[in-house]
Amino acid sequence: MSNPIHPVILCGGSGTRLWPLSRKDRPKPFLPLISEQTLFEQAVSRVAGDARFAAPLVVAGAQHIALIEAQLGGENGADAGHRLIVEPCARNTAPAIALAAALLPEDDIMLVCPSDHHIADPDAFRAAALAAAALAADDWLVSFGIAPTYPETGYGYLLRGDEMPGGFGIARFVEKPDQARAQQYLESGDYSWNGGIFAFRAGHLMQQLETHRPEMARLVQESVAGGRGEGARFYPDEAKFAAIKGDSIDYAIMENTDRAAMVPADMGWSDIGNWAALQDAIPAADDAGNVARGPADLAGCSNVLAMSDGPRISAVGLDNVCIIVSDGEVLVTTREGAQQVGKLPGAANQ
Amino acid sequence: MSNPIHPVILCGGSGTRLWPLSRKDRPKPFLPLISEQTLFEQAVSRVAGDARFAAPLVVAGAQHIALIEAQLGGENGADAGHRLIVEPCARNTAPAIALAAALLPEDDIMLVCPSDHHIADPDAFRAAALAAAALAADDWLVSFGIAPTYPETGYGYLLRGDEMPGGFGIARFVEKPDQARAQQYLESGDYSWNGGIFAFRAGHLMQQLETHRPEMARLVQESVAGGRGEGARFYPDEAKFAAIKGDSIDYAIMENTDRAAMVPADMGWSDIGNWAALQDAIPAADDAGNVARGPADLAGCSNVLAMSDGPRISAVGLDNVCIIVSDGEVLVTTREGAQQVGKLPGAANQ
Repeated sequence: MSNPIHPVILCGGSGTRLWPLSRKDRPKPFLPLISEQTLFEQAVSRVAGDARFAAPLVVAGAQHIALIEAQLGGENGADAGHRLIVEPCARNTAPAIALAAALLPEDDIMLVCPSDHHIADPDAFRAAALAAAALAADDWLVSFGIAPTYPETGYGYLLRGDEMPGGFGIARFVEKPDQARAQQYLESGDYSWNGGIFAFRAGHLMQQLETHRPEMARLVQESVAGGRGEGARFYPDEAKFAAIKGDSIDYAIMENTDRAAMVPADMGWSDIGNWAALQDAIPAADDAGNVARGPADLAGCSNVLAMSDGPRISAVGLDNVCIIVSDGEVLVTTREGAQQVGKLPGAANQ
Repeated sequence: MSNPIHPVILCGGSGTRLWPLSRKDRPKPFLPLISEQTLFEQAVSRVAGDARFAAPLVVAGAQHIALIEAQLGGENGADAGHRLIVEPCARNTAPAIALAAALLPEDDIMLVCPSDHHIADPDAFRAAALAAAALAADDWLVSFGIAPTYPETGYGYLLRGDEMPGGFGIARFVEKPDQARAQQYLESGDYSWNGGIFAFRAGHLMQQLETHRPEMARLVQESVAGGRGEGARFYPDEAKFAAIKGDSIDYAIMENTDRAAMVPADMGWSDIGNWAALQDAIPAADDAGNVARGPADLAGCSNVLAMSDGPRISAVGLDNVCIIVSDGEVLVTTREGAQQVGKLPGAANQ
């Protein structure tokens, strides 16, 4: 396998469930949530300084270009040969991925990575990426199958199919299950989480799109043909791209093709989908399971996440609560309630 | 009974358990906790505009004079004839009360009231005050016996003794009980809370102090003799007052005298001793028992108190939690933990 592997980093997520830290003008991928690096910087670092991977191709909206170019500075900087595709508007993942596919040489491999996930074990990620790239070179559409660690009801699942060299077929895509089925999937050992990480041969992805979503394929091609480069940036034609009926890559292609495959990946993955998930991804600072970022006094508390950008947080007697103070907003939520944060007026009406 | 009744309002409490709203330079009595009036203003209003009560005599530390004189302005203002005794230092309630007793004509009645309590039914308070004043004129040392509403372990209790015209003797003073005994006291119907509200004849109080704490009585007399007036303010002699070994009125006199009496008082009393007590004193704003002061969005919450002086509070899924945002500090406590707030670093190290 010698086709170059191009990381394609998608910056579409808004992260409203991580409000009030995540804001419209500085959303989740661009925040240093787990370490001093932002999730986007982590996504770039994960494949940086490794000759097996080309410089990343970033797909993002115009409103985030400044953040992205700033965060690509320094050691991952502009000199490193990154490219940036500026989406005229948001049309979900299938058109975003297809833009990158249309711009790459058709025999090159795309490694599609969301920019707002956390991966604790980058070595495992790279190993899975190489396995996926090898399958993609043989014209498989490869999804990373994340080893599930608990019965999550918020993700889609992949049922493992026949073994093939370096991976497996996908017997079935499963929508978000209920609690009982999620538990059953976990116990069976046959299911993986669909983590939204993919490998494709660029030309094969475009062929598949032409088969399953011909109108989308045509508009993406025309949008690229009518686009313009500006240094490292590429601006697709706005009217053509805006005319696309958006869809996810799963719905548009993965669930319709007979070329879907998966590589298993056990790499400490989290989509940091809400404050409770973030808490789980950060090692606790004390025996009671508390995590503090910024000034915090936690008395008689357990499993509390306290994050502040300035004001001191003082807490007494709480269990399983997340307290976030950011830019003049104060959020206090149970871990169970964390999934609802995006619907709060503060998060919804930014 | 025609002896004039002088309300003596004590401003000694620090209110650290109501941090971060209550601060060293603006403590609990001077905050509008229950209504738009502060607790101090409520204490003054309770006896204002009623010819049966003289203008109040306020006893307070020098650091709070400006707050007090500002809050005595307006309808309770300086024209109303209030006087202010400026304590050179804090020596607990017995010396503070004795200062007022030594300055008043000996046959006048003192109605001693803490400045940081809430009384929902001022009519019931005034009725009890008149009954207490009548007993005090006959040289009883009269404590208000607050009708208990739950088995509080943080208060002292009074065991009712023999009935007398307008009140009862006190058979026994009981220190803070454990939970089982508090429950037993509540169920018996024979016990009252010792609320720290008293009526004395001024000359009688000084006689009793001479009997039970002669050294304290001498130093108070000398401190008054060596003091100076300045408009409505009276400054006792600093050295003499500082030499007093401080004590509470209960320990110094009430528990030692054979002239202790009580008047029952069922008047919606609360000492607003912590955030949970404040929550109980404010009518809930919704069916789930939530109370909000300042901008707050409470989703799926019950029995939550949310108070903010500016930043919005957003909360999800909490039950029995108090959230206080004040002057750059954020406090989140369970109702059970509210009693511990005063020990937090923020409250303790002001």
